[in-house]
Amino acid sequence: MMARIAILIADMFEDSEYLQPVAAFREKRHELIHVGLQAGGKVLGQQEQTPVVIDVSTAEADHADFDALFIPGGYSPDKLRTNVDAVHFVRKFMEEGKPVFVICHGPQLLITACVLAGRKVTGSKSIIQDIANAGGVYTDREVVIDGNLISSRNPGDLQPFSNACLEMLS
Amino acid sequence: MMARIAILIADMFEDSEYLQPVAAFREKRHELIHVGLQAGGKVLGQQEQTPVVIDVSTAEADHADFDALFIPGGYSPDKLRTNVDAVHFVRKFMEEGKPVFVICHGPQLLITACVLAGRKVTGSKSIIQDIANAGGVYTDREVVIDGNLISSRNPGDLQPFSNACLEMLS
Repeated sequence: MMARIAILIADMFEDSEYLQPVAAFREKRHELIHVGLQAGGKVLGQQEQTPVVIDVSTAEADHADFDALFIPGGYSPDKLRTNVDAVHFVRKFMEEGKPVFVICHGPQLLITACVLAGRKVTGSKSIIQDIANAGGVYTDREVVIDGNLISSRNPGDLQPFSNACLEMLS
Repeated sequence: MMARIAILIADMFEDSEYLQPVAAFREKRHELIHVGLQAGGKVLGQQEQTPVVIDVSTAEADHADFDALFIPGGYSPDKLRTNVDAVHFVRKFMEEGKPVFVICHGPQLLITACVLAGRKVTGSKSIIQDIANAGGVYTDREVVIDGNLISSRNPGDLQPFSNACLEMLS
């Protein structure tokens, strides 16, 4: 079944952490909508300057319109977590138990949304202490699945990460 | 009196948050030593690609050789907090009550070093929740001084930040 997936993204995302899951989602014909700070704006990846056009702003986006949420890593989550609409958007997916896929620095948005307490999660080595302080149970594995939440550490985990996301959507 | 100041820095530091305090420190003839991941390596700022040469590696640096620590912001602290020597170096300054100056994302290193509990501190808007979760008392002011620790939020606070640092050193 086709799912409608919100991709929450801003400048300085880690290119591969966007491109590889997106290719996997598209292959299975899932619908992808890019949610960001400014509708119609273009954001760039930090390595290859991959251009991504934002379809819907965080202010306009309604979680009810989506089946799942995907947050690529890099420094994109750092930029998004200062935006109250982005944080609210993320919180709603977690509160309603809809599938949420995060990799690398993606959990930073879950921390600001205060939804990590007691949840098993992994992420970038740099945010391990932040995850623990947020009440998350950090696990050093390529893919961690806890209910609706799938997380991975870095680009090296992309293949199993994408596989786990597709499996949850199927 | 001249102080010997360690500047803990890596790639993607926020240029102005390095340049302006450094100019202020130099004007007062303080001695500046750049501590980073690789001695002799060159790191670059994220805005202007300001080149900075690392004098001493975090593995070789001894906190006892310095009177104060300065941590510029940007994404440099995110890169340094994965390095156990950098985290240990920071912890030692805090444990010994030596002056520590942080701005923007600089407190991320204090979080990983587990030295923020009960301390008044400010920093980048994006890390407010991380500071609170680490037990820090976040205060939205241009300069926050708590004992040996001086912190500021962003480049807009640089003038009062530099002034406060110089005053503590004098």
